[in-house]
Amino acid sequence: MSHAAETLDGWYSLHLFYAVDWASWRLVPEHDRQAMVTEFENKLSQLKAVKDQGQGDHVMYNVTGQKADILLWFLRPEMKELTNIENELNKLAIADHLIPTYSYVSVVELSNYLAGKSDEDPYENPHIKARLYPELPTTEYICFYPMNKRRNETYNWYMLSMEERKKLMYDHGMIGRKYAGKIKQFITGSVGFDDYEWGVTLFAEDVLQFKKIVYEMRFDETTARYGEFGSFFIGNRLAFNDLQAFFKI
Amino acid sequence: MSHAAETLDGWYSLHLFYAVDWASWRLVPEHDRQAMVTEFENKLSQLKAVKDQGQGDHVMYNVTGQKADILLWFLRPEMKELTNIENELNKLAIADHLIPTYSYVSVVELSNYLAGKSDEDPYENPHIKARLYPELPTTEYICFYPMNKRRNETYNWYMLSMEERKKLMYDHGMIGRKYAGKIKQFITGSVGFDDYEWGVTLFAEDVLQFKKIVYEMRFDETTARYGEFGSFFIGNRLAFNDLQAFFKI
Amino acid sequence: MSHAAETLDGWYSLHLFYAVDWASWRLVPEHDRQAMVTEFENKLSQLKAVKDQGQGDHVMYNVTGQKADILLWFLRPEMKELTNIENELNKLAIADHLIPTYSYVSVVELSNYLAGKSDEDPYENPHIKARLYPELPTTEYICFYPMNKRRNETYNWYMLSMEERKKLMYDHGMIGRKYAGKIKQFITGSVGFDDYEWGVTLFAEDVLQFKKIVYEMRFDETTARYGEFGSFFIGNRLAFNDLQAFFKI
Amino acid sequence: MSHAAETLDGWYSLHLFYAVDWASWRLVPEHDRQAMVTEFENKLSQLKAVKDQGQGDHVMYNVTGQKADILLWFLRPEMKELTNIENELNKLAIADHLIPTYSYVSVVELSNYLAGKSDEDPYENPHIKARLYPELPTTEYICFYPMNKRRNETYNWYMLSMEERKKLMYDHGMIGRKYAGKIKQFITGSVGFDDYEWGVTLFAEDVLQFKKIVYEMRFDETTARYGEFGSFFIGNRLAFNDLQAFFKI
Amino acid sequence: MSHAAETLDGWYSLHLFYAVDWASWRLVPEHDRQAMVTEFENKLSQLKAVKDQGQGDHVMYNVTGQKADILLWFLRPEMKELTNIENELNKLAIADHLIPTYSYVSVVELSNYLAGKSDEDPYENPHIKARLYPELPTTEYICFYPMNKRRNETYNWYMLSMEERKKLMYDHGMIGRKYAGKIKQFITGSVGFDDYEWGVTLFAEDVLQFKKIVYEMRFDETTARYGEFGSFFIGNRLAFNDLQAFFKI
Repeated sequence: MSHAAETLDGWYSLHLFYAVDWASWRLVPEHDRQAMVTEFENKLSQLKAVKDQGQGDHVMYNVTGQKADILLWFLRPEMKELTNIENELNKLAIADHLIPTYSYVSVVELSNYLAGKSDEDPYENPHIKARLYPELPTTEYICFYPMNKRRNETYNWYMLSMEERKKLMYDHGMIGRKYAGKIKQFITGSVGFDDYEWGVTLFAEDVLQFKKIVYEMRFDETTARYGEFGSFFIGNRLAFNDLQAFFKI
Repeated sequence: MSHAAETLDGWYSLHLFYAVDWASWRLVPEHDRQAMVTEFENKLSQLKAVKDQGQGDHVMYNVTGQKADILLWFLRPEMKELTNIENELNKLAIADHLIPTYSYVSVVELSNYLAGKSDEDPYENPHIKARLYPELPTTEYICFYPMNKRRNETYNWYMLSMEERKKLMYDHGMIGRKYAGKIKQFITGSVGFDDYEWGVTLFAEDVLQFKKIVYEMRFDETTARYGEFGSFFIGNRLAFNDLQAFFKI
Repeated sequence: MSHAAETLDGWYSLHLFYAVDWASWRLVPEHDRQAMVTEFENKLSQLKAVKDQGQGDHVMYNVTGQKADILLWFLRPEMKELTNIENELNKLAIADHLIPTYSYVSVVELSNYLAGKSDEDPYENPHIKARLYPELPTTEYICFYPMNKRRNETYNWYMLSMEERKKLMYDHGMIGRKYAGKIKQFITGSVGFDDYEWGVTLFAEDVLQFKKIVYEMRFDETTARYGEFGSFFIGNRLAFNDLQAFFKI
Repeated sequence: MSHAAETLDGWYSLHLFYAVDWASWRLVPEHDRQAMVTEFENKLSQLKAVKDQGQGDHVMYNVTGQKADILLWFLRPEMKELTNIENELNKLAIADHLIPTYSYVSVVELSNYLAGKSDEDPYENPHIKARLYPELPTTEYICFYPMNKRRNETYNWYMLSMEERKKLMYDHGMIGRKYAGKIKQFITGSVGFDDYEWGVTLFAEDVLQFKKIVYEMRFDETTARYGEFGSFFIGNRLAFNDLQAFFKI
Repeated sequence: MSHAAETLDGWYSLHLFYAVDWASWRLVPEHDRQAMVTEFENKLSQLKAVKDQGQGDHVMYNVTGQKADILLWFLRPEMKELTNIENELNKLAIADHLIPTYSYVSVVELSNYLAGKSDEDPYENPHIKARLYPELPTTEYICFYPMNKRRNETYNWYMLSMEERKKLMYDHGMIGRKYAGKIKQFITGSVGFDDYEWGVTLFAEDVLQFKKIVYEMRFDETTARYGEFGSFFIGNRLAFNDLQAFFKI
């Protein structure tokens, strides 16, 4: 790989977005609705158990606006575990009332643009391991969007030299650093896995920070000239304990 | 933020568009339809109550054409309050007959391009506060559209210098001023929140003014070279007192 | 308005396209189907009555191909009258079997590019009044399409001088004149009202004339460089007296 | 028409694509299914009868892949006859189980780029008449796709001189000739009638010839620089006698 | 064919993607579900039988994410056999619960860019025959995506000379070779058959190799300047023996 920056790859990642079919849900007797939510809770508890074994993590958010109602983000060591989770969710009784609206398949990725030269195996570096196999935050707000680097006729990211890309990514990273403590950012790579090249998932207590960082970065050359964005999804935390209330009519 | 103009951000904003499912609505016995509309009215009254406490506002319009039937626009101090409002609307009995068709998530925004230098805290300026936390008009007509600033190969808004953008926005603003008294304009920022960068919501008694201002601005360089538009939605006021009539078959 | 050509604006315009849901329609007993068509006919008669008062007009066509079955085009003095008409149509029993497929919101518009200087009020000119508040033709065929003027990087209509646009529009108009007597053309402006900038509605006894004029104009610089088109809809007249036959199975 | 090449126009054309709704079809008792297919066969026979009178033609193919199951292509002297055929098909009992997926409205067209000068009325030339009012082939395979000529900023077909277009079309035609005997090609013009400018319908006994001709033409300047394509549909012949078998479950 | 590289074409190819309609599936009594899966298994066994006769092959994968649940990829000597397979699948009882989500029609293709000159008939070369009429792998993971070569204004693949394309494809192929033993790649040509020009199907035991090869190739000039991609689909193997378990609720 002479041209491409090597990447470090961690857990596989699956973002699942669902809209609640409230009309069909309302037709279910209340007692049955409670039982279905309980079955859903049990499945989530079971899926959360792997976290204690350091074998993945997941979070759940309530999406704002009509693109979806629920975002479930899963991380696992193997891609096929994610397919299995999706199959298991589909087989829950409550799934009859959850309409799939969007999904994203990727893998936690650390770019090597900023790496120094070293004989060290990066996968043994504790700091890097913590980022490749992360414990997900439980902040009040989440933001997800997929993106590409443009391959336009004049400005084509993939025809830039490694040096040029390194310089651009360095400046880009400097903006990100200003938001340390306010935003936690996870980059997942999806080249060959899904329709965009990367997914960006941001966590913050203050939702306005998402707008501030994305807006400031838009003036950065890396984004201004080369960034291409898919849909933006935003949501607030749907805590496990609030699930019954969320589904209660 | 060296390149970006800083923005002032006020209430969070959620535009919700619904189409009425008239076929299923017709199947509901008239007495039940009235009860459902009354429940909807009660929810709207309750949501309007926060206005008296200076904690938000909302308006309702009847959309022209087949993109939607109803537009509900909500403003609130916290993003998650908007998610909650959406959840509460979804749980109304009438929601079974309202098909979500489009939504927009943003925050009331004042650009700082035209700001002078001052030691004053703009959030304490009463004129600015009135615009960040506005009381919404009740004009006969509304117009909503989302937009981007283009990042084309030759003309890329985000690669212009602050001076160039300031000049372009000044000229742009001069056109807007000519419509003072005819149109009330609200800009909401959605970078990082939704698929376009801004939402524009216009209010007027004379619907033709929307066409006049948008057409005149199209010749302005800011728009001609850099403006990129999503769908345009237009509607006339659906007063609280007309809700029973609107839903009556 | 220094840059923009001023426009003269007449009646508001709403094109409504519906597909018939033949499968559900077939389930309705024949007697009820007849009653539903009669109710539809009564509503159309009532809407046609305003024509005798000079307060609008409408036409109905049977669309060829699967984009729609029925096109209803309405003109009225106020935009909200059009929203009301749409609401009234939605409340007809037959509406359960009409699937909305496309709509277009605009206003009858005369461009002022070709206007001479005069002290006369154009809205008092009988020739202009007849075009702003037109009586619609009842030709065998109709053609509708929405369009934009392009704002590309090299060829940007809105960055041309008024003189350049005047010249281009003059040449463009010369082609149109060649079809006088064969085609009646109505331009409706939709900047700020719908997703394209203009709607074009053509009427002809000979459907081939639509192809001839649109093809010939495509070589005209105004269209070749600056025209951008939405979907094309074509249909033949669905006379009021043929409505029962059209809906009969 | 100084710039445009004049075209010769023959029968009007309607391509109708349907997917079979196998799930609802399976619910119909077998005896009723047979009756519905018989009614469909009778309608097709009746529509085929016009062929003997030289008043049109039609073919039926089984589309490969999930874009559709059935393609019906109709030719008729008047556009409104095509609308009527579509209406009649919609009123068949079997239509409840046929989901419209795509349609294309056009007219058989011969371009005049290659025409010599002559006083002869081309519509009286027997060779030309045979191509404008053709008898359709019954080859094993069909291929349909709609296309445009590009109007890009640098390469704009409609800004080329007639001489340049003539030269390009001549070279383009030379490739087509190499496939004489292997492929029968029908061009239908749809400028002003549907969303692309032309429809191309190819017939062959050997399906691979479609790939060969379309691929070879892609290197031809006319296509490489100026061709813009919609969806490609491919299918094999669904003979009248195979209709009961096709629909039998 | 002076400009185009000749291709060698083998078996015809059909990728079929289905989503399981779990909600309707859950309504089927368990005994009936088992019978439906058994009928599906029998059909697959029957279709697999042709493999023993060297007359085609197929594989089945469980797609990750919401684009689909099941991918079935079929190869056959004749295109119409693929249409028939699709028809037969549609007539299975289980098909009522499988929603078609995407399909791709193509033919196994070997490009001749790298071919030396030879008098040998390539279709008689055993190495080439094995690639044109392949036995499909049964690796743990699959990746499918369709692609085009760009025809942009500056960079237009089809306006390059054969020499230039040969050079670019050679470099491109060199990257592919580095993944020998890790990835098995199948190129299917779809010019004239489906909406993109080629389909790429990759097999690997280690799903991460898909990301590595696609990412590395993106910096290769052939891809960086000329590659244009459709949707990416990824999945893990759904073995015949796991079918009952997959469908069991």
